[in-house]
Amino acid sequence: MTAEQRLLALGLALPPAPAAVAAYEPWVRTGNLVFTSGQLPWRDGRMAFTGRLGAELTVEQGYEAARQCALNVLAQLKAATGDLERVRRLVRVEGYVHCAPDFRGHPLVLNGASELFNAVFGPRGAHARLAVGISDMPLDAAVQLTVTAEVAD
Amino acid sequence: MTAEQRLLALGLALPPAPAAVAAYEPWVRTGNLVFTSGQLPWRDGRMAFTGRLGAELTVEQGYEAARQCALNVLAQLKAATGDLERVRRLVRVEGYVHCAPDFRGHPLVLNGASELFNAVFGPRGAHARLAVGISDMPLDAAVQLTVTAEVAD
Amino acid sequence: MTAEQRLLALGLALPPAPAAVAAYEPWVRTGNLVFTSGQLPWRDGRMAFTGRLGAELTVEQGYEAARQCALNVLAQLKAATGDLERVRRLVRVEGYVHCAPDFRGHPLVLNGASELFNAVFGPRGAHARLAVGISDMPLDAAVQLTVTAEVAD
Repeated sequence: MTAEQRLLALGLALPPAPAAVAAYEPWVRTGNLVFTSGQLPWRDGRMAFTGRLGAELTVEQGYEAARQCALNVLAQLKAATGDLERVRRLVRVEGYVHCAPDFRGHPLVLNGASELFNAVFGPRGAHARLAVGISDMPLDAAVQLTVTAEVAD
Repeated sequence: MTAEQRLLALGLALPPAPAAVAAYEPWVRTGNLVFTSGQLPWRDGRMAFTGRLGAELTVEQGYEAARQCALNVLAQLKAATGDLERVRRLVRVEGYVHCAPDFRGHPLVLNGASELFNAVFGPRGAHARLAVGISDMPLDAAVQLTVTAEVAD
Repeated sequence: MTAEQRLLALGLALPPAPAAVAAYEPWVRTGNLVFTSGQLPWRDGRMAFTGRLGAELTVEQGYEAARQCALNVLAQLKAATGDLERVRRLVRVEGYVHCAPDFRGHPLVLNGASELFNAVFGPRGAHARLAVGISDMPLDAAVQLTVTAEVAD
């Protein structure tokens, strides 16, 4: 099965790749690496998850927000490569979790992204990860995610 | 026009490359990539913009601070390459905005850097971007910026 | 002297490489680059430094925490390469300092990592660095560190 077929089997579809919200590009390729810009939990043209973990949002909602960011990452990788089968492997995921003081569940939240990547790409989806809490996030988004990926020539 | 000529046409000059403030290097090259350390808004040997967006600083001041960080990035890229014409393209900009609770204008602030890069480098300046808010910044700096760039052999 | 011999001369030993705490890998290699996941100050299976700089922890404790993170980075690089002599050079260190409002000593804290890298690797240890303050850290860890390194073919 291809990555897109696995996505469909999960009941998910690749969304349109969100545009950048300011004077930058949604992704850039250099050599065999693609770097995405920070992806926010946009869904159907609106910010689907706003607010802070540990205050306005539950860990379950944070998990869903991270998964939505991951779907948008997949859309950017499709735009960058033309075909997700040309993604040789994910390299690094940076996860920024919008949170209130004393929140400690960052890893659980970001598993919403990591588990989707693993399910869709299989062994190609294995990635190094950074997880930090951010007190103030652009557009009040719940999660922000960037990905570095290795792509075919 | 070269990147430096465009900079002059904007009424700006390349500053001296700021030294690192501790036990690290201002930039490192690996293969065709240069990674800069976090650049702060130093100007003429002093920190030109201190404090937090959404408290002590306006968005306009934040924009200027991001532009000053970007000038310092250009100075580091000049030091790394000897000539900004050897910068093939910018790849990724990370923007850390020092801000007070509930600040949401990170993208506007960081456009101070992105718009300068676009003006100076043209299409070579297009970059992926990360934007997050930071509650406590080294040296109380208003903005911190890192850049990954692809350079000529 | 090799990097491991220098470590021993400092009275330090390479710890076992900590496992990832969620659905990701502790490091990933792409081409000649290795990216580590965020390393926390684990020591002997427990989180050795928790809390915030500028509140529960002194700068000296933060320095020790950063050094412990750096030891764990070295363990990951050993796992990634089989031999630290195959690390051609460090490229970039990202340091996230868990801190209370108004803390400004991030560079001093992170020197706990940078100075160890410089001592162990010599000129190969020189690195670009990012330093930011984080108000909420996974597992209440005092410091989190990631490293990008260039490794031999």
